[in-house]
Amino acid sequence: MADANNQKRVTAGMLVIGDEILSGRTKDKNIGTVADFCADLNIELCEVRVIADEIDEIVDALNALRKKFTYVFTTGGIGPTHDDITADGVAKAFGVALKVDDRAIKMMQDRFTDYPMNEGRLRMARIPDGGELIPNTVSGAPGIHIGNVYVMAGVPKIMQGMLEAIAPKLETGIEVFSASCDSQVGESSLSEPLAALQNSYPTVKIGSYPQMGSDKYVTQIVLRSADKPLLDEATQKVRDIIAAATKNKLKI
Amino acid sequence: MADANNQKRVTAGMLVIGDEILSGRTKDKNIGTVADFCADLNIELCEVRVIADEIDEIVDALNALRKKFTYVFTTGGIGPTHDDITADGVAKAFGVALKVDDRAIKMMQDRFTDYPMNEGRLRMARIPDGGELIPNTVSGAPGIHIGNVYVMAGVPKIMQGMLEAIAPKLETGIEVFSASCDSQVGESSLSEPLAALQNSYPTVKIGSYPQMGSDKYVTQIVLRSADKPLLDEATQKVRDIIAAATKNKLKI
Repeated sequence: MADANNQKRVTAGMLVIGDEILSGRTKDKNIGTVADFCADLNIELCEVRVIADEIDEIVDALNALRKKFTYVFTTGGIGPTHDDITADGVAKAFGVALKVDDRAIKMMQDRFTDYPMNEGRLRMARIPDGGELIPNTVSGAPGIHIGNVYVMAGVPKIMQGMLEAIAPKLETGIEVFSASCDSQVGESSLSEPLAALQNSYPTVKIGSYPQMGSDKYVTQIVLRSADKPLLDEATQKVRDIIAAATKNKLKI
Repeated sequence: MADANNQKRVTAGMLVIGDEILSGRTKDKNIGTVADFCADLNIELCEVRVIADEIDEIVDALNALRKKFTYVFTTGGIGPTHDDITADGVAKAFGVALKVDDRAIKMMQDRFTDYPMNEGRLRMARIPDGGELIPNTVSGAPGIHIGNVYVMAGVPKIMQGMLEAIAPKLETGIEVFSASCDSQVGESSLSEPLAALQNSYPTVKIGSYPQMGSDKYVTQIVLRSADKPLLDEATQKVRDIIAAATKNKLKI
């Protein structure tokens, strides 16, 4: 994809697969990690879905996301037990067979010296036809790369290792610059001039975030743009807006 | 909805609205809170989506979720600035007008003694036609209840207060019981008998979760069912499976 300036836009969706997140039993840490990872590579994370370990849910969500975005990152559901059905869902979504893969067995046995391939481990060695392996330095069982989809483990440490493994292979987007300005004035008092500023600088994305601290109220204004001079210009205007509002002693 | 035993099933979807989550700037805490909240009320949280502050994204996701589930909980995008467009999206999804609401102004002015209604504050007083207010004891500006949708703030403390406010109004589901068993044996060694057990007890949901600790490897098996005697029976069988595997000295 290319925008008006012929600069590349690389997008991503994320699919978190796991009953344990929806039940509240496990608190997800992977969304934030993937968001940071994408930001570092100038990949625009556009949507995240969290769904249950249900085959039809996985197929529907994966097909929706992989059509919409450059990449899809999934986490969870690739362990050895009966409730780990992500690989089944991925194979079904792509309409390909799911088979025990010799490369996966070799990867697992290379990682552990004494590693008999019982049923659970064979389950983790199942790779959809046409899929490539993502190395897992933590516990051996691979992730899967197929089409524009990267299938990773749900355990954060393993997932992070897999992200590092795939990073060099990903196409990265345009460089996006950001700036932020803190204000002791509440965002209600800034909203009118900020909206006007956003209208004047449509290619600079301006976000406003209240920071509820224990002793004072601070608003952070964050600006993002691929156009550095324009970003600097808009940032100075935000500083001017904050200074004027502060001078007016407007407080929330 | 009713299942085969004529027991009520109450479901929920959640929509997290905010560029700041997708950019990695803010790490979401609300998904876990809503998941716990639903679990406490025996409401089944079935899906979560995280989307950007884009009007069409909000309309599409909200319409998809509100048709699928008993309730939809949204967080984020109801502040005073131009990038807070959740109320606009909700109104558009329901096909109703969005107007400054006198009840909302009163609620905000009741909360703060000196609270002139500038443009930003008037923005927070906009309520879709037919919507009810959700009290906000933290910062005054209300959330919105319309149809089966509950629109709440993104700031965790405010969101939690709003959840408390709506809890008594929600229909709650059947009581679901849970049990868990820890195993020192890796889940690969348990997967075969657990899959067989799951087949024998289709109404008891059995999940397996590796716990990667610093000094030892533990697997936790979690069982859930609305049928307590059946849950107890299956839990005992899981204990037997773990005992047998431990006796076999199978280690990952």
